Amino acid sequence: MEIEELRKAHPEHWKLASAIRALTMDAVQAANSGHPGAPMGLADVATVLFSKHLKFDASAPKWADRDRFVLSAGHASMLVYSLLHLAGDEQVTLEQIKNFRQMGALTAGHPENFLLDAVETTTGPLGQGIATAVGMAIAEESLRAHWGKKLVDHRTWVIVGDGCLMEGISQEAIGLAGMQELSNLIVLWDNNDITIDGRVSISDKTDQRARFAASGWTVLHCDGHDPDDIDRALTEAKQAKGPVLVDCKTIIGFGAPNKSDSYAAHGAPLGDEEIARTKAIYGWDHGPFEIPADVKSAWEAIGSRGATERAEWEERFAALSDSKRGEFTRIMTGTVSKKLVGAIRKFKKEQAETAPKVATRKASEMVLNVINPICPETLGGSADLTGSNLTKSKEMSVFNPENRKGRYINYGIREHGMAAAMNGLFLHGGVRAYGGTFFCFTDYARGAMRLSALMKVPTVYVMTHDSIGLGEDGPTHQPVEHLAICRATPNTLTFRPADVVETAEAWEIAMSQEGTPSILALSRQGLPTLRTEYKPQNLTAKGAYVIAEADGKRQAILMATGSEVEIALKAREILQAQAIGTRVVSMPCMELFAAQDESYRKRVLPPNSVRVAVEAAVRQPWDRWLLGERGREAKAGFVGMDRFGASAPAPELYEKFGITPEAVADKVKALL
Amino acid sequence: MEIEELRKAHPEHWKLASAIRALTMDAVQAANSGHPGAPMGLADVATVLFSKHLKFDASAPKWADRDRFVLSAGHASMLVYSLLHLAGDEQVTLEQIKNFRQMGALTAGHPENFLLDAVETTTGPLGQGIATAVGMAIAEESLRAHWGKKLVDHRTWVIVGDGCLMEGISQEAIGLAGMQELSNLIVLWDNNDITIDGRVSISDKTDQRARFAASGWTVLHCDGHDPDDIDRALTEAKQAKGPVLVDCKTIIGFGAPNKSDSYAAHGAPLGDEEIARTKAIYGWDHGPFEIPADVKSAWEAIGSRGATERAEWEERFAALSDSKRGEFTRIMTGTVSKKLVGAIRKFKKEQAETAPKVATRKASEMVLNVINPICPETLGGSADLTGSNLTKSKEMSVFNPENRKGRYINYGIREHGMAAAMNGLFLHGGVRAYGGTFFCFTDYARGAMRLSALMKVPTVYVMTHDSIGLGEDGPTHQPVEHLAICRATPNTLTFRPADVVETAEAWEIAMSQEGTPSILALSRQGLPTLRTEYKPQNLTAKGAYVIAEADGKRQAILMATGSEVEIALKAREILQAQAIGTRVVSMPCMELFAAQDESYRKRVLPPNSVRVAVEAAVRQPWDRWLLGERGREAKAGFVGMDRFGASAPAPELYEKFGITPEAVADKVKALL
Repeated sequence: MEIEELRKAHPEHWKLASAIRALTMDAVQAANSGHPGAPMGLADVATVLFSKHLKFDASAPKWADRDRFVLSAGHASMLVYSLLHLAGDEQVTLEQIKNFRQMGALTAGHPENFLLDAVETTTGPLGQGIATAVGMAIAEESLRAHWGKKLVDHRTWVIVGDGCLMEGISQEAIGLAGMQELSNLIVLWDNNDITIDGRVSISDKTDQRARFAASGWTVLHCDGHDPDDIDRALTEAKQAKGPVLVDCKTIIGFGAPNKSDSYAAHGAPLGDEEIARTKAIYGWDHGPFEIPADVKSAWEAIGSRGATERAEWEERFAALSDSKRGEFTRIMTGTVSKKLVGAIRKFKKEQAETAPKVATRKASEMVLNVINPICPETLGGSADLTGSNLTKSKEMSVFNPENRKGRYINYGIREHGMAAAMNGLFLHGGVRAYGGTFFCFTDYARGAMRLSALMKVPTVYVMTHDSIGLGEDGPTHQPVEHLAICRATPNTLTFRPADVVETAEAWEIAMSQEGTPSILALSRQGLPTLRTEYKPQNLTAKGAYVIAEADGKRQAILMATGSEVEIALKAREILQAQAIGTRVVSMPCMELFAAQDESYRKRVLPPNSVRVAVEAAVRQPWDRWLLGERGREAKAGFVGMDRFGASAPAPELYEKFGITPEAVADKVKALL
Repeated sequence: MEIEELRKAHPEHWKLASAIRALTMDAVQAANSGHPGAPMGLADVATVLFSKHLKFDASAPKWADRDRFVLSAGHASMLVYSLLHLAGDEQVTLEQIKNFRQMGALTAGHPENFLLDAVETTTGPLGQGIATAVGMAIAEESLRAHWGKKLVDHRTWVIVGDGCLMEGISQEAIGLAGMQELSNLIVLWDNNDITIDGRVSISDKTDQRARFAASGWTVLHCDGHDPDDIDRALTEAKQAKGPVLVDCKTIIGFGAPNKSDSYAAHGAPLGDEEIARTKAIYGWDHGPFEIPADVKSAWEAIGSRGATERAEWEERFAALSDSKRGEFTRIMTGTVSKKLVGAIRKFKKEQAETAPKVATRKASEMVLNVINPICPETLGGSADLTGSNLTKSKEMSVFNPENRKGRYINYGIREHGMAAAMNGLFLHGGVRAYGGTFFCFTDYARGAMRLSALMKVPTVYVMTHDSIGLGEDGPTHQPVEHLAICRATPNTLTFRPADVVETAEAWEIAMSQEGTPSILALSRQGLPTLRTEYKPQNLTAKGAYVIAEADGKRQAILMATGSEVEIALKAREILQAQAIGTRVVSMPCMELFAAQDESYRKRVLPPNSVRVAVEAAVRQPWDRWLLGERGREAKAGFVGMDRFGASAPAPELYEKFGITPEAVADKVKALL
């Protein structure tokens, strides 16, 4: 249909959609940067979605049973900001629209979940939104199974662009959602055939409909500018079984006379003249940022469409028992169970007494056997390494279409999709997610793991096989730089526990986080229990602590993490036998140690003793502790890795790369 | 067909395939670790491929016009080792088979390209093989277009498992190969329906045939244990247009009475008893590692099948002119053109004179306009950010099915697939690849970038928009930890040039690498030319150098990279105005600086001056240089980022995060 026809056929709709387009053009122009084309192309689809299908109440953007709306094509952020402003979201004032992309504005270049309540998840890195939404849809299914349809019954809607669908992570999401038959997941594809470099066909000729269908999705399509056709498709989508793709044929920069249907509309302001001509074509006779009162009030009516539904839900919620309401609120706010601290103490005490020699991955499984029964909000999983990551605790059954009460997800060989889904599980509310793979494959999941940190999502990454200690699988599977990578990432806790007791302490801290993801780097190989004296305090919470004190005058301090703490303790024995007083510091979490006050840090690492750190990884994160935070503190050395590993049995690798008690002792003596 | 029938119907084939299976079982058992199931399942397919279709000569594994064979399912490494040993590859002796996965053996846990000539690419991280193979197939098409069919005319064969196909990177590879209509790419899918955690269906129900077809692939299938049917399918595959998937229905651990068709056959030795029973079922009446002479000589005949073809090729090659032979040899060995050094010097001289203010991404484009005309082996590209990365130099045309002589690849929104394809382009030989994306999206490409380093592939990653300096797109697009990540990775050169001259020097070094990938972190924002005095030497090759000396007694040393060198120089002016003698060190490449001898490092960074580093990124990699390599060297401070960025114009972000000349000067004064 031509624009003129559309205007005449759907005058009310046209005004609603034009308001989105006008605000978008004005805001991008004022910011002198941004992406006008996609919001202009998507305005009709979004108007129909918000006015007729999405369950939401603009006055309560965090209402538990709302539909989730995810803009996977995050660069189209002005679509969301326009919708929220028009619908009456209190945070997104006109002032915010005018300050799009400016310092301190809530209307950032890409939608950020930590800035706006109504933004369910941060998007921008392409493909993350759809993969995160799969986690949200799983969370909805899981909570519905546990709490009933009266409390949990909503959909997850996603808008994806061509870019999202070219990213590999989208395939992981499509495959997982298809296998899980997530009927409440509906993906709207902004099929505008344009990418930054030109037509989609210059880089991709995939039949997307066939691709989704191949993974069991229902595939629908519509003219993305015809409100009746969009409405029909969305109505059908809600009735379909399994996840749904709606192919919405759209035109990027819809209506712009010179830039529509071209990459010129994608990522730059249209310019004043093109905007004026476009508005004339729309019949939009209003100044910049001006929304006529009738249009605004029509949009506000849409914004309050869900008020009754919400009120009814709140009545049902109020009718629950106190304890049920309390528990629902606890899990939806991500508050950890009060039972956790006591249970972990009891476990630590038992382990200190029995002192097992177990790999820390096995220790982690033992801790999960304690945590999962008292924390019903956990959903665990692994990227097809369950028997290696040891992430499935005793009582857990598998979550799948036949068993929505299951709490364990077979994510398949999809590390990136798993990490994104874990983000979605938490962001939905009601779920605390953990998932496992080999530590080396954080490489595959990095895109989503960074978003956990940025979005303040306290998921737990159970990363086993954490060094050359994994042995024969060789350098592709042996992390060397990954501890440095995790520690370099802001707002991330990287734990490398030395034994079963530190593993329990690390899990306790990780489970208690409200806005920080945790990475547990765990050994494949067995490690002795070092903390054989039970202490109720969580020593790991200090990040580093003295695990063995110097005998006699202290001349050296050894620092280590994980499997290398045992090596440091053996090196200490060698040195003490030669009357060299040696302290050993276990440093399971550098980030937490850095957060201690200076006096504690100085107590653990006093100046003037020789310092040697040992970790089967690169030195980069250690310089700070070796050399002293202000410099000039100590002579220092490092025993670790400065290259990739090799394929051989683990003990031989430790010998080959010189990570031995003797090498550590020799390093100390050379520095004394 | 039952095994008994197969044995009878194809007695010769059966013996050949049984030899692979027997060696596999024996080697995994002797190593007490490894993956027997997949090689046992694939033995029939591999036997038909090697005996009837693959163009190879076991005596010359690096012959230029050989077919490339990639085992994407790298854990099935014993398949390759068995094949190579049996076919007479000199490196893979029986001793090597017996030492599978042991220290120093060439037969590592996963196939490593740097250990065995016949291993085209390292595999193990799933999905990498198929994505790398796409690069190899592109290289073949490109070289054929430039050198003709008489010199270049071969196929790329890939074996993938279910795991490879679940990884997102496989979709990027499938989409790219389909769009590029790579007729010489044939993928054999080991469709055994088993993953580590169980049946494929517990995590995926994708119809893989339909999925490949959706991206324009020809899809064939065969019974993966019937040699006639395999032969028919491979014959058809060679005739098909566009890339081909052959769905080979196989049984993991084929023949093992208790473990076949189960995950129990996947990743652990079968055990002596099961091996004995399996061999009995095979009718294989030989001791461990024992290959009867008739079987060995039949395999060796297969290994020399390609000798005639190779001899004919060598005749054709010898008939070329000296200069053509020289050029072909130069590009196939990855040797850089002798013209490069002079051309870069000329360029540097011009820039020093005109001193433009340009973003280093723009500078990179200017350098590419010099490099590409004199280095015909370059194939450039971008993951759909051509206009931002500025990776397409003037004369470049696009490589696609209509223009195989094009030297620029529209990789699409596929960072991971691009990086893996770049690995394949170089590993094939004859091509030096570079490709661009935003620096932040190294996160998406990490899996393949790590393999560049491990495999010693000297590709160049053109990573633009390298800090908060990109401005309004906000924290999802602003690298903070990525310099630390790249610098923590072994065998990787991370360049962050400060101006157009350093950019040219960095490119020269990157192009000259024979076994190390380079990452160029380039600014979005304009930067002044700082190196206005022309020097023929490549100062960047030293990693760090004094760019401005202290006036009067040196009290402070400022260190910086990239866009922050300008800030350091301005801070120096402030300090010098207050009579504080201040040296400024530009450090475009920490790895190269670390490789200098100690006396040079000490000359650049003498002890006892206060040291302050400034870089719009996390501090972690700087401690070594700030605090002194042996500790106790200097009082030190850092001006940079300790959190994620924000969305706002770049200059305001530098103010907000306190990365200013004034802040640097203040930090120095506080330390003095």
